[in-house]
Amino acid sequence: MSLLTVGSVAFDKLETPFGKTDKIVGGAATYITISASYFTNKNNIVAVVGGDFPQEMIATMQEKGINTDGLEIIADGKTFFWSGKYHNDMNTRDTLDTQLNVFENFNPQIPDNYQDCQYLMLGNMVPALQHSVLKQLTNRPKFVMLDTMNLWIDIALPDLKAVIAEVDCLTINDEEARQLSGDYSLRRAAKSIMAMGPKTLIIKKGEHGALLFQGDQIFYCPALPLEEVFDPTGAGDTFAGGFIGYLAKTDDISFDNMKRAIVHGSAMASYCVEKFGTERILNLTQEDINTRVNQFKDLAFFDL
Amino acid sequence: MSLLTVGSVAFDKLETPFGKTDKIVGGAATYITISASYFTNKNNIVAVVGGDFPQEMIATMQEKGINTDGLEIIADGKTFFWSGKYHNDMNTRDTLDTQLNVFENFNPQIPDNYQDCQYLMLGNMVPALQHSVLKQLTNRPKFVMLDTMNLWIDIALPDLKAVIAEVDCLTINDEEARQLSGDYSLRRAAKSIMAMGPKTLIIKKGEHGALLFQGDQIFYCPALPLEEVFDPTGAGDTFAGGFIGYLAKTDDISFDNMKRAIVHGSAMASYCVEKFGTERILNLTQEDINTRVNQFKDLAFFDL
Repeated sequence: MSLLTVGSVAFDKLETPFGKTDKIVGGAATYITISASYFTNKNNIVAVVGGDFPQEMIATMQEKGINTDGLEIIADGKTFFWSGKYHNDMNTRDTLDTQLNVFENFNPQIPDNYQDCQYLMLGNMVPALQHSVLKQLTNRPKFVMLDTMNLWIDIALPDLKAVIAEVDCLTINDEEARQLSGDYSLRRAAKSIMAMGPKTLIIKKGEHGALLFQGDQIFYCPALPLEEVFDPTGAGDTFAGGFIGYLAKTDDISFDNMKRAIVHGSAMASYCVEKFGTERILNLTQEDINTRVNQFKDLAFFDL
Repeated sequence: MSLLTVGSVAFDKLETPFGKTDKIVGGAATYITISASYFTNKNNIVAVVGGDFPQEMIATMQEKGINTDGLEIIADGKTFFWSGKYHNDMNTRDTLDTQLNVFENFNPQIPDNYQDCQYLMLGNMVPALQHSVLKQLTNRPKFVMLDTMNLWIDIALPDLKAVIAEVDCLTINDEEARQLSGDYSLRRAAKSIMAMGPKTLIIKKGEHGALLFQGDQIFYCPALPLEEVFDPTGAGDTFAGGFIGYLAKTDDISFDNMKRAIVHGSAMASYCVEKFGTERILNLTQEDINTRVNQFKDLAFFDL
């Protein structure tokens, strides 16, 4: 089934304890679509970049089967830029610079040939824009997933709640789940958030894995303990892309299949952090993915 | 197989966001032996208390099949007392008061009828005392497990390393694993720590579960997401008691059986935190334990 992803495509400049990058290509929709490309070739992106965005990266995305008809290029504009520095724990980071550039006036337009998408991923951005995408679709997709962040809980809560009410699945991290619900217990937080609309909730816990909630059902997918986390940028988006890409491929939104999707998303994220930016996830084989998915099985299974 | 536990028996005075207690019975060896009592009735304790320690609690432990021959009572002394206050996140706490009392001069003596123990649990205490217990045993137990804490890494590292070198399994929390190894990556930290001696390492991550390492094998046992964590005191010891109690019951120290033991320990810990002190774990049925162990299976299993 076809997947539509709307979100940022950006330049990142990163500093981790392992090194620094120059401006490299990042952005939520970049990671999501690249990750999803291993699962579906009906993989559509809506995003905006400036004239400074490298043609080679667009070509690379197209080679991965990503349909870039919806990638608007504003020739005299500059691409969204973010620069950050990770602390030694790799879980916390400081933003050094944010230049919204063409992303500031992003007004996502859904091309006609994207109207039939069955799976919709609303990457992290202004909640009102996420909502505008939903409103533009003449047929509601079968499955709509939304990612957000603490910033929007802080400054755009009514808009965020309005769009959350209309999606099937929300993905946020543990601190954001606590902030959004006002409840420290993740189990109670999950109940409150599902009461806001989404039937399914994914709480991402970084190195501690991810929790999938639906009604009274819970699934806990651990993160693979890695020797080295080289660069965590994009791990959450890569996870989301693997998750929804797997759902789009299998076209099965049962809880059992969502478990498999979470494991595939986690496998993709575990590769993402091994190198800077998208480098690692641009160069995976199906064999690599299967190997890692089986490692998750070894990690979590026991025999009673 | 018989289990010997050496450690503290204490009074705790607790404050959590849910309420306060008067002095209640706590201590590592208390939680460990009570938890283990659901798995083995060859359950021996070596500890020290003062004349102020309630006879009823000793009777309760004996009803649970715990052999208290090694529980030294110093009639004119006072029992170790600790008072603490948990923060809202329930993961951090302040110590309000520590009175070592009779625990200050604790010199564990192993009764002759404990000499044949096959499983030994060295609860958290001064590393030199843990070592003295090992030296007193004429036959080395089949499986020796040791718990410790950041304090001993800070002030008694050479003693700690000396005893760690001689045990089969070390259990510590994630921050302590990082502190002891000097490595942020838990996977690399685990390698360093296993190189210090123990073939098996358990890293406890509180609400995020526990990791079991042995050679290149890793098992991740999640923690059950609970609506309410009422009082985390003793959860780590209850976990350890369930783990080693299960091993002693089954007398199988294969990695696969340790996985089952971790799940049983986690199930016990998940009950422990539901009420203050030992209240909940004193009142469980085998059915309760089986129910929860099956919840872990539902939580972690997926179908590929």
